[in-house]
Amino acid sequence: MNYFSTDFRLGILGGGQLGKMLLYDTRKFDIATNVLDPSKDAPSQYGAHQFFQGDLMDFETVYRFGKTVDVLTIEIENVNLDALDKLEEEGLKVFPSPKTLRLIQNKGNQKDFYTTHNIPTAPYKRFSDIEALKTAATANEVTMPFVWKSAQFGYDGNGVKVVRSITDLDVLPNVECIAEVMVPFKNELAVIVARSASGEIKTYPVVEMEFHPEANQVEYVICPARIDSAVADKARAIALQVSEKFNHVGLLAVEMFQTQDDDVLVNEVAPRPHNSGHYSIEASYTSQFEQHIRAILDLPLGNTDSKVAGIMVNLVGAEGYTGQVYYEGMEDILAIEGVTPHIYGKRETRPFRKMGHVTIVNSDMTKAREIAQQVKETIKVISK
Amino acid sequence: MNYFSTDFRLGILGGGQLGKMLLYDTRKFDIATNVLDPSKDAPSQYGAHQFFQGDLMDFETVYRFGKTVDVLTIEIENVNLDALDKLEEEGLKVFPSPKTLRLIQNKGNQKDFYTTHNIPTAPYKRFSDIEALKTAATANEVTMPFVWKSAQFGYDGNGVKVVRSITDLDVLPNVECIAEVMVPFKNELAVIVARSASGEIKTYPVVEMEFHPEANQVEYVICPARIDSAVADKARAIALQVSEKFNHVGLLAVEMFQTQDDDVLVNEVAPRPHNSGHYSIEASYTSQFEQHIRAILDLPLGNTDSKVAGIMVNLVGAEGYTGQVYYEGMEDILAIEGVTPHIYGKRETRPFRKMGHVTIVNSDMTKAREIAQQVKETIKVISK
Repeated sequence: MNYFSTDFRLGILGGGQLGKMLLYDTRKFDIATNVLDPSKDAPSQYGAHQFFQGDLMDFETVYRFGKTVDVLTIEIENVNLDALDKLEEEGLKVFPSPKTLRLIQNKGNQKDFYTTHNIPTAPYKRFSDIEALKTAATANEVTMPFVWKSAQFGYDGNGVKVVRSITDLDVLPNVECIAEVMVPFKNELAVIVARSASGEIKTYPVVEMEFHPEANQVEYVICPARIDSAVADKARAIALQVSEKFNHVGLLAVEMFQTQDDDVLVNEVAPRPHNSGHYSIEASYTSQFEQHIRAILDLPLGNTDSKVAGIMVNLVGAEGYTGQVYYEGMEDILAIEGVTPHIYGKRETRPFRKMGHVTIVNSDMTKAREIAQQVKETIKVISK
Repeated sequence: MNYFSTDFRLGILGGGQLGKMLLYDTRKFDIATNVLDPSKDAPSQYGAHQFFQGDLMDFETVYRFGKTVDVLTIEIENVNLDALDKLEEEGLKVFPSPKTLRLIQNKGNQKDFYTTHNIPTAPYKRFSDIEALKTAATANEVTMPFVWKSAQFGYDGNGVKVVRSITDLDVLPNVECIAEVMVPFKNELAVIVARSASGEIKTYPVVEMEFHPEANQVEYVICPARIDSAVADKARAIALQVSEKFNHVGLLAVEMFQTQDDDVLVNEVAPRPHNSGHYSIEASYTSQFEQHIRAILDLPLGNTDSKVAGIMVNLVGAEGYTGQVYYEGMEDILAIEGVTPHIYGKRETRPFRKMGHVTIVNSDMTKAREIAQQVKETIKVISK
């Protein structure tokens, strides 16, 4: 298949920041793209060859969009899977496959999948709705505190809540969910695995994630993780095991916990470019976005090593500000060496909204970490 | 001034590959752009917020385009300067300024400028037309062989010819020109200087350029140049001197010869991102395209150091092929570590047409050079 400067058309479901960053590399390779997103202001409207506005959960919209392309991928998991099934049946290449997406879309199924395949994960129980969970909690069949997770449609801390008492359950939505044992952990780690259509596999280095305690959003992603090499090897091996069992095509971001005893437990996965891999644009020989394109088009995978140490700081809307965004301190951070802001293109900020990220690269990790802190303390996403 | 996710609009005259690569960084910063290019198939039609088709040499077209933007830059020198003068008079920020462009557009003026400012350059004579040059050559007022250069509109080897006999002059166009002494040189070098609106200045490392002997197009650009540090220092100092005298805003790519005696002579300059800086996308802390944007918007300049060694190979149309392009050997080069192809998005290939480039990065320069050779021998721009 010839992709470069031809009539070949790659479809991307979702036009957010991940789609936007994918388009840097489709443009670089001159691979033509169609993008579907519900918002006319989607960040990916620029850079695509054709942009379609439409509902990603609507069967007809997704099916008809799929008919305009030669290979279909996603930048968000919440898309109409029945449409993908039908497109795949009719011969379209869909990566990740609807089968993979179906397993991942539902956190209950995802956890069961780990259990079935002997992949270490925190103990959990599934519940069809909040009443069933309340009954179990009242009967002490689940132990407080535990982590409540909505089975579907959760992202960036939405759909996840620590439950410390029965009354905490009263504010939760009445949806299918899981209750997961709270595992005390030292670190949150992630490994991105790339797997091409013909089965070539590469893993990126283990990264370390620091979360904002309240918003439950990643604050820093640090590559390489400052952990023992034995733990790093274990995390990479488990990520590979997960990748093999999912048999996915494209990227699989595997989020993990490093426990107090240096066990590694799988938390969850995302079958696409991931926040934990944004550092790779500046730090790696091959960015995760280019790698995803290589994988789904069955091109040879690129080198996943890093040129330099990389740290990513998320730019989220500051509390107390809603409206036209203003990036306070941008000039100050641009004056620091090795600092690259990525502005996603959302005009309106609101508290904790993901508005962009900043990558800090340096040949020296300690220096990079210092600069990351400085960046974080300098830039503020507000409105004026 | 606030550029990020606002109504601010940057205008780019020219929509070729340089514009296309500039747009990666305007997208990254979410700076809105308008692009003007004569071709509806221009590579920069994707990624701009608005694309206008029109003649860059037409006063009205350029003037009206300028009225749609807040800051105006170029990716090609051959644009209507009278329109830029008028826009600048009316208060538009135009970088580089029409004054800088006027000096550079005419190679005779450019050479006189070097002479006036004591900047070392190869000896030359100016001629108003080919007849005047023939008269001088017949009277032995210029010595054969010499380098004939069209004063205007030359690029990529067009408008440059080595003249070895009077009869060589018969095939040359009847235009204003210069006759330059052929200086035997060891190396062709280049330094890109970035200068911001408020006068901050940074230079990129000296690169070494290897030219295709027939097509007079760059084959390899090697960063850092494998030259003596004393010569590198001299080249950087001369580039800075040129930059100061031009008083430009934005990038200035300074092409130079290293003579047999290790003198450094300025050949010519380009006041914009340049082929000799393409390596910077993968190898440098700040790519030349991001740097150009920082400079013209008066943002702090980024670090010009390299993370790793970088070599660029131009992808030009192979001789004997005209038509729908096919990149033979693409999968083979993608399988080599540290290899990044950039495909400009031109559907039709023809002999020596610039179709793309490939960057090779490696922590080891010797290894990078070996891989560059391998890439060059593997990929071929043909039609099928």
